[in-house]
Amino acid sequence: MSTQPTQIRFARPAQGVPDNDTWAVTHEPVPDPQDGEITIKVRYLSIDPAIKGWITDKKSYIEAVKPGEVMRGFGVAEVIASRSDYFKVGDFCTGFTGIQTHATMDSRQLRKIDPNLAPLSRFMGGLGMPGFTAYFGLLDIGNPQPGETVVVSSAAGAVGHVVAQIAKLKGCRVVGIAGGPEKCAYLRDDLKLDAVIDYREGSLLEALSEAAPKGVDVYFDGVGGETLDAVLMIANRHARIIACGAVSTYAQMDAPQGLKNYTLVITQSLMIKGFTMRDYMHRIKEAFVDLLTWEHEGKIVFREHILEGIECYPDAVKMIFAGKNNGKLMIKLGD
Amino acid sequence: MSTQPTQIRFARPAQGVPDNDTWAVTHEPVPDPQDGEITIKVRYLSIDPAIKGWITDKKSYIEAVKPGEVMRGFGVAEVIASRSDYFKVGDFCTGFTGIQTHATMDSRQLRKIDPNLAPLSRFMGGLGMPGFTAYFGLLDIGNPQPGETVVVSSAAGAVGHVVAQIAKLKGCRVVGIAGGPEKCAYLRDDLKLDAVIDYREGSLLEALSEAAPKGVDVYFDGVGGETLDAVLMIANRHARIIACGAVSTYAQMDAPQGLKNYTLVITQSLMIKGFTMRDYMHRIKEAFVDLLTWEHEGKIVFREHILEGIECYPDAVKMIFAGKNNGKLMIKLGD
Repeated sequence: MSTQPTQIRFARPAQGVPDNDTWAVTHEPVPDPQDGEITIKVRYLSIDPAIKGWITDKKSYIEAVKPGEVMRGFGVAEVIASRSDYFKVGDFCTGFTGIQTHATMDSRQLRKIDPNLAPLSRFMGGLGMPGFTAYFGLLDIGNPQPGETVVVSSAAGAVGHVVAQIAKLKGCRVVGIAGGPEKCAYLRDDLKLDAVIDYREGSLLEALSEAAPKGVDVYFDGVGGETLDAVLMIANRHARIIACGAVSTYAQMDAPQGLKNYTLVITQSLMIKGFTMRDYMHRIKEAFVDLLTWEHEGKIVFREHILEGIECYPDAVKMIFAGKNNGKLMIKLGD
Repeated sequence: MSTQPTQIRFARPAQGVPDNDTWAVTHEPVPDPQDGEITIKVRYLSIDPAIKGWITDKKSYIEAVKPGEVMRGFGVAEVIASRSDYFKVGDFCTGFTGIQTHATMDSRQLRKIDPNLAPLSRFMGGLGMPGFTAYFGLLDIGNPQPGETVVVSSAAGAVGHVVAQIAKLKGCRVVGIAGGPEKCAYLRDDLKLDAVIDYREGSLLEALSEAAPKGVDVYFDGVGGETLDAVLMIANRHARIIACGAVSTYAQMDAPQGLKNYTLVITQSLMIKGFTMRDYMHRIKEAFVDLLTWEHEGKIVFREHILEGIECYPDAVKMIFAGKNNGKLMIKLGD
């Protein structure tokens, strides 16, 4: 192998946001592939808020990573050796590659992608899990109708900016919530949302009431906590809340902020529906085709925030929890 | 009119559970019906936990009752004078009669019922709103499948005991939660539920884990609060939570207990769906026919707790919030 293989391992549990002590770097050689296995060279690594859940030993949709193990992570990779009938050298794939530069693994754990369809980075973002998450969450659960008001939190984030644009495509009034003037300017000026709220400024409930004078019909919730409570206050009857993330509670999982306005769920006949992409893996081609077509037609843009080099992983994790990324955060690995 | 008309009015707002000071009794004559109106003599009055919401000036599915107004309430009544084409004297009807012995009102506000089909009290209980609420909440939202585990809170209550029996009919493992030995004995010995939990005894989460060893697929939630949080802890992937009541928070509406386990809604792909009967009024015949048939076939029993005389209304309200009723609580009015 031309470069030294590098792994980022989960070293020890983190109170709150993971920091440098949470991780350990190793340089172990990668074994040759056995029957059915392939060896891959990772090109892009995805940075996701779900990281916090993966290293927290609590009931979840997926087993927790144990101390000493290579950190879980999503990547796009090139096949550099193959003993699988399904992949040949030079193919590209995506899946849980782990936070490492190289890996040898069962080929069935990876999904083949066509690098001629879009830049590789796109398969980590708008044409990957964040895009699919936006697509199925908004359309399958939210079912937005023309003229309805859709509120999106983390609206400048990897998933949120795609949700906001699909909702615009569907003829909705779209209200984006984000933190800080740069993100809000992006949502207002570039994505042309109907209203933008900086949650760091003033009363969220007042701002929401002004931005959604006809109430809220669909809320794509990436943060939970107080934002969700505020949206519930102005939710219209039969509103749909897509529970996709609870970033506000990830760093305080032991004593999370409780949802206070549960009574409104009853009296307003609201639906709160959670999901993970596991529910939709059998349908991702639907999302891929639509998202690719919309991008080609200039109806949607995918914003990517690309860092370089696996050694910046600890900082990238801090960045995503501080909300300092603009669009989908990923790491490009060198050749 | 043969008896003196009596009205129970909402006198002043209540902190917590309404008490005697919340109400005022008046004896005002009932006007003669005008075109389209009927005069009714109320036979049964329903006592519902929703009362607390009706006298709380907070966004809800229905306008709050104002001080001085006759208290809102559901009743079964006989038509004693009519200037409506739809009702004749001697007909029976149900609807928001108000907490009073007599009323003159627009006939379109009431729904005709056939007293030959069942005892009048039944239209307040199993063949009325509580039965319909159980039916649509469990079947339309919960969609329970044979072999699945269904948990019902307030399982000995007006709605809960119907939910539990329908779930048994559908081939589910049914776990009932109630307070006190009498109710638990009823659920275990009379309704033959698979497991019964007295929430006043020991750890609810431990008891639930034991009663639902394969996890929870459907939860009919009539209480909210800590019980909901406990059920979320052992909810299976894609479980459905029917949000039908939040009795635990009604008496502390200003500072309710927050829902703490929201993150599980995401990671387990849970659905929490609220509803009120307003969503299903166009479909009540479906519920009526099935419930009536099941009662005739001996597959379901409807438990009624009947008090007598409109003057016991304040005590009846206290009783429902103390959970001291066994089955559907109602007041029978004298002739």
